[in-house]
Formats: sequence, structure tokens, C-alpha cells
Amino acid sequence: MTEASASPGVSVHAEGGDYRVLVDAGLLGRLPKLLREHAPAYRYAFVSDDNVAPLHAERLVADCRSEGLNADLFDFPAGEASKTREQWSILTDAMIDAGLGRDGCVVALGGGVTTDLAGFVAATFMRGLPVVQLPTSYLAMIDASVGGKTGVDVRAGKNLVGSFHPPAVVVADPEVLETLPEAERAQGLVEAFKHGAVLDVEYLESLQEDAEALLQAAPSAASAAVLRSVQLKAEVVSEDEREGGYRQVLNFGHTIGHALEAAAGFAIGHGTSIAAGMLLEAELGERLGVTEAGTGERLRAGLETLKLPQLPQLDPELVVGYLATDKKVRSGRPRYVLLRRIGEVDPGYGWSHEAPEALVRDVLQDMDGTT
Amino acid sequence: MTEASASPGVSVHAEGGDYRVLVDAGLLGRLPKLLREHAPAYRYAFVSDDNVAPLHAERLVADCRSEGLNADLFDFPAGEASKTREQWSILTDAMIDAGLGRDGCVVALGGGVTTDLAGFVAATFMRGLPVVQLPTSYLAMIDASVGGKTGVDVRAGKNLVGSFHPPAVVVADPEVLETLPEAERAQGLVEAFKHGAVLDVEYLESLQEDAEALLQAAPSAASAAVLRSVQLKAEVVSEDEREGGYRQVLNFGHTIGHALEAAAGFAIGHGTSIAAGMLLEAELGERLGVTEAGTGERLRAGLETLKLPQLPQLDPELVVGYLATDKKVRSGRPRYVLLRRIGEVDPGYGWSHEAPEALVRDVLQDMDGTT
Repeated sequence: MTEASASPGVSVHAEGGDYRVLVDAGLLGRLPKLLREHAPAYRYAFVSDDNVAPLHAERLVADCRSEGLNADLFDFPAGEASKTREQWSILTDAMIDAGLGRDGCVVALGGGVTTDLAGFVAATFMRGLPVVQLPTSYLAMIDASVGGKTGVDVRAGKNLVGSFHPPAVVVADPEVLETLPEAERAQGLVEAFKHGAVLDVEYLESLQEDAEALLQAAPSAASAAVLRSVQLKAEVVSEDEREGGYRQVLNFGHTIGHALEAAAGFAIGHGTSIAAGMLLEAELGERLGVTEAGTGERLRAGLETLKLPQLPQLDPELVVGYLATDKKVRSGRPRYVLLRRIGEVDPGYGWSHEAPEALVRDVLQDMDGTT
Repeated sequence: MTEASASPGVSVHAEGGDYRVLVDAGLLGRLPKLLREHAPAYRYAFVSDDNVAPLHAERLVADCRSEGLNADLFDFPAGEASKTREQWSILTDAMIDAGLGRDGCVVALGGGVTTDLAGFVAATFMRGLPVVQLPTSYLAMIDASVGGKTGVDVRAGKNLVGSFHPPAVVVADPEVLETLPEAERAQGLVEAFKHGAVLDVEYLESLQEDAEALLQAAPSAASAAVLRSVQLKAEVVSEDEREGGYRQVLNFGHTIGHALEAAAGFAIGHGTSIAAGMLLEAELGERLGVTEAGTGERLRAGLETLKLPQLPQLDPELVVGYLATDKKVRSGRPRYVLLRRIGEVDPGYGWSHEAPEALVRDVLQDMDGTT
């Protein structure tokens, strides 16, 4: 075993071949070596937004070049507004014009917008180039970079266009979390709480205890949480890569969460909306008798440690409208992942449930800003 | 075995699961049954161009509805000019607006433009819906619908954006070839000759003998040729789905052919340019001593039976320029699939060869309109 593959990490099973998610402070310091080992290519196309490019990408491209690798940087304007088919086209054309060929490799360096967008560029460039994911946010490390989901947003909703394109390797270096604003850290940690809520009650408790250190990106707490979340997510997606069944459990909080986000015109954080979605789906589950009473309150106590911003007032009817266009809609009706209790999802039918629209409406009517 | 799966056809191995290519006159008459059997879905989104829609699609959608299936028709302007990211976006948005969900299925009905474009819509719709391919041209039956390639053209070249997305099933009904203009039949049959040239000398000879019947779309000759081409192509793509190696052999004629097509501003038929590409690559192989002398002449005698239009005068320098942007470029240099003799490809390095640019230039200088 070489030094590089001895890094702490997790193996993820994917249809096109297994890949490693490496998690360790300082990993990016030996990126050229990791690229040679895990994703040998004639040329590397780094993709970063214009916040991350000067912070990290320019230095890493220079490191690669000084180690004899062909590397170029393609940047784009930071923000969710760039996660579009238009920006995907612009990046693709820039890479073609630069002469990138089928023996190239895309290197996505950034948060979830970058890993999703650059992943989709890679998935569709000459019918697919390998992609190396270098997540720089909690959200991207914990969630977006594992599992091979790529995509962009369209007018009708987020991630409605995209594909499954597992990475060649994921390199998560928690040292870069220091450059992430604290508010962004809180947003990303919501997905860690979700992993605890659906799969591991002890993990949820440890997150609640370590919340302050995690919000400060203290290296040991951050490394431990990222590694545990990646382990939990890897177990799920290794079992069900394409979301035909068990992978559904990771959608806890997301059916209502995505609808809230859309109803707010995407003016609220993803974490804020997913946190509210989890609490509302816990409430829904409790009212349906599927979820143990008190689960929502326990979840609320955990999530409060993240000091997320309040949800704005939203029209429940608008939210119900967006629920009908959710990707998880089957046979014309939205479906909800419901907990049995913290750390355990109710199997339902295909790991999700339908719910009477009147009941969903009631739950949404009762939501307030602290949900 | 049910009646439907007893149809003549070929099984193709693909990463995401094997699929059947059914070939038989009259198959489309029992499409609803075939859809239920091979691609059960809550809803079917038919995609056709505005030539094929009134000829076949409207009737088939009506058949599906009368058999109790949810089916809708999405059409687009006929022609290669529609094989763009813009048209892909328009079709995607129309399907989202119509409420198509993850339990939907795309049904591509048409020629190669439609199978490629609708296949790419399916590949990227909510990260991938199943697609049923119903090819209506020789080209689509013989080539485009088998192997899972999907994609669109961009300014810099054809098929530079796309993905591998194997179909749920392919249903090729040679009866629909009657509605195809004879000139289009000749264009598509070029790919059949290519299959003979690289894999099966006896098949090449039978195509030459039956050329007149094939150009008239005589049902028995057409069914036999489509079935043999599909068998040959299926053997290749079953062995190498992603074109890492052996699948390269199907690119015979395509490195130069695509460059000719681009240099002519896509104003010449795909078949015409691939036919010329095969003859020029045969000549290149002969001059390199890789290809048996006389191979080009033998190939020319076969292709002449198709009575293809002449190639216009093209500037060799322009063609050389387009060769450098070919998708098959590796490490910055174009590569060529070269025959050893009719029916056998020289293994070269990864089933292709480099060639000195000066020699390629010489071969292109010597081309004339009858190449």
C-alpha cells in the first residue's frame, strides 16, 4: 500500500467502479501525487468559482504544473445562480476551445455548487470524463461529493437536470474549512445532523455536543464528523447507487425542504430549509403515527445548536404547489421519508410514504419561523 | 418466454443492465404490449421531429392511450440543426412542465438526430429516465440506437456533449423505412458497409449484392441487413461499452469522415462523409503498409452501389485543422482505425494508430469528389 492510499478514508461502491473518499487535514498539500495515483490523465481541468479560485485553486494548479502535470483553471461566478445549463455550456465550450480531449480529467474544487456543476460538465463532456472532487465546504464534503450525483437547476426546480457520475476519487481536506464563513459551516452541518437522524443516534448526540467546535472548524472535530458522515452515506449509496430504494432514506427532510426553498425563491440557505423540512416531516410522521412521539422535539434540540437563521413566513399553498413537482413524486403524488425514531427510518413502501394532502397542509399551516 | 420476447433480436450487454434490440417487420403494431413488457412506466414521453410525428408518432401515442397507457407527444423541428443544447433544454422544460416524473419513460421515435437528442434528454432528466429507442431510419436502426451513445452537437463539433445511456429496449421495425426518402436510405446503409468492412467480409459482399433491394427498403433484405448489423455492433459494444478499447473499431472512417463533415460546414450527408472517410483511411493504411493493397479499391466497388452524392471540393488544410479537435484525439494527436484487410481491423495500439501529419495531408491532397 502506498503512502497516499494509506490516508484515512472510505471506499464507495459504484456501478462504474469503486472509488475512495479520502479525509484528512493537509491532504491537498500532496494533490499532484494523489492525482497521479487515483486519476492519471493527460490533462487536468480545474473548475472553481471566483471565490475559491484565488483562495485555493490557483495555488493547486501551480503545484500540479511544478510537478509536471498539465493543468488549467476554469472559473465561474460564485453562487447558486451559476448552477445552470448556461454556465455548464460556457465551461464545456471553454474546455473544448482549450483543447481538452477524452484523455482529460475534470477537477472540481469548491462547495456543492461547484461539485454538482463541474461533475455535470465531466459527465457530459465527450460522453464522460473522469472527475476528481475536492470539496471545500462542509456540505460538499459531507454530502455533495459522495454518491455521484451531479446536476444543475432549472426554472422549475433544483437539480432537475443532471446525471449520476461517480468520481474517480474524493479528497476532503478539512483544513480548507477555515476559509469558509461560519454561516456556511452551519448550513452544511445540517446534513450531518440528517445522517445522525436517519442512521445513527450516537452520531447525532456527538454532533450536538461538538457543535461549537464544528462551527469553528476545529480540525479534529471537523475531521471526525466529515469521516463519520462519509462512512454513513457511503454505506447507503454503496447499497443503492441509483436511488431505486434504500438511498431514499437520505431524502429525509428533503421533500418539504426543497419545496420550502423553492417557495422562498431560493433566498434561504439550503441547510435552513432542510432543517425545517426535517422538523416538519418529523411532525408529519408523528401525526401519522409512524414516528415516535417527541422525535421532532429531540431533533429540534440538536439543530438549535447550529444557530440557523429563522425561516421567513411562507404561504403553505405555494409550498404545496412545489411539493407536486418534486423529483421524488411517483405516480403524480409526493412521497416522504419518515423516521420511526431518531437513527431509524420507517421502511414504508420503498423507504417512503404518501401522506394525505390535507394533513400536509395542516402541518405546513402550523409552521412558524423557528421550525 | 412470452410472445413479445420471442421476437427476433439481439441482446446487448451494458453496465446498467442488458437490453434487447428487437428487429422485425410489423413490431410497432404491438408497441403498447412491448412497452409494458420491456419498459413499464407511469407515463411515456414520446419524442419525434415534426416529419415523423404525423407519419408515425401520433398514431403510436393514440395506440398507447387506447391500451390504457399515459402517453404524450413532444415534437421538435426536423433536422441536424435541432441536435443542440438549446433544443435539449426546450424538450426537458416541456416535459417538466407537463409533470413528467422519475417514474416516466422517454420514447425516442425517429432517425439518428432523434435517438441521440431524446436519449440525452432521458439521460439527464432528473438524473436519468429509461429510454426506449424506436429508430425509423437505417442509420438509427443499424447504428445510433445500439450502444447507448447519446448527445448533441456544439459549435466546435458533433456529439461533443452527451453521455452513455443504454436504452431499456430498442424496437426496430423495418416497415417504417418505406417512409424514408431513398437518399436517406443510402446515407444510412454506409454504416452497414462499415460493419462489413471492419468485421465481416461476407456481410460486405451480401450488402453489395442486395444494394438495390436495400435502397428500395424491400422488407426481407432490410430486415436481414438490420439484424446482421445489430448483431455485429452488439458483439463489439457488449465487449467494450465505453469505447476504452475494442469499440474503437467502429470508428473506422470516422476520424477523417467527421473532419470532412465539419470542413463542409455539415452541408454533406453523414453517410457521404463517412464513406469518403473510409476510403481515405484505407488509402492511409495502404500507404503506411498496415492495410493490404487493393483494400480501398474493393471498398470503393462496394460503396459505389449506394450511388452516394459526390463530395464537394474541400481545402485539405481545413480538414487537417478539424482532425486536431476530433474526440478520438489522445495526448494532442488524432488517431485512425486502420484495416488489415476487409473484415479485419489492425490492432495497432488500442485499436487505432497515429499517422504522420504530412502523410495525412498527402492523402487528403489526392482526394477527389469520387473518394
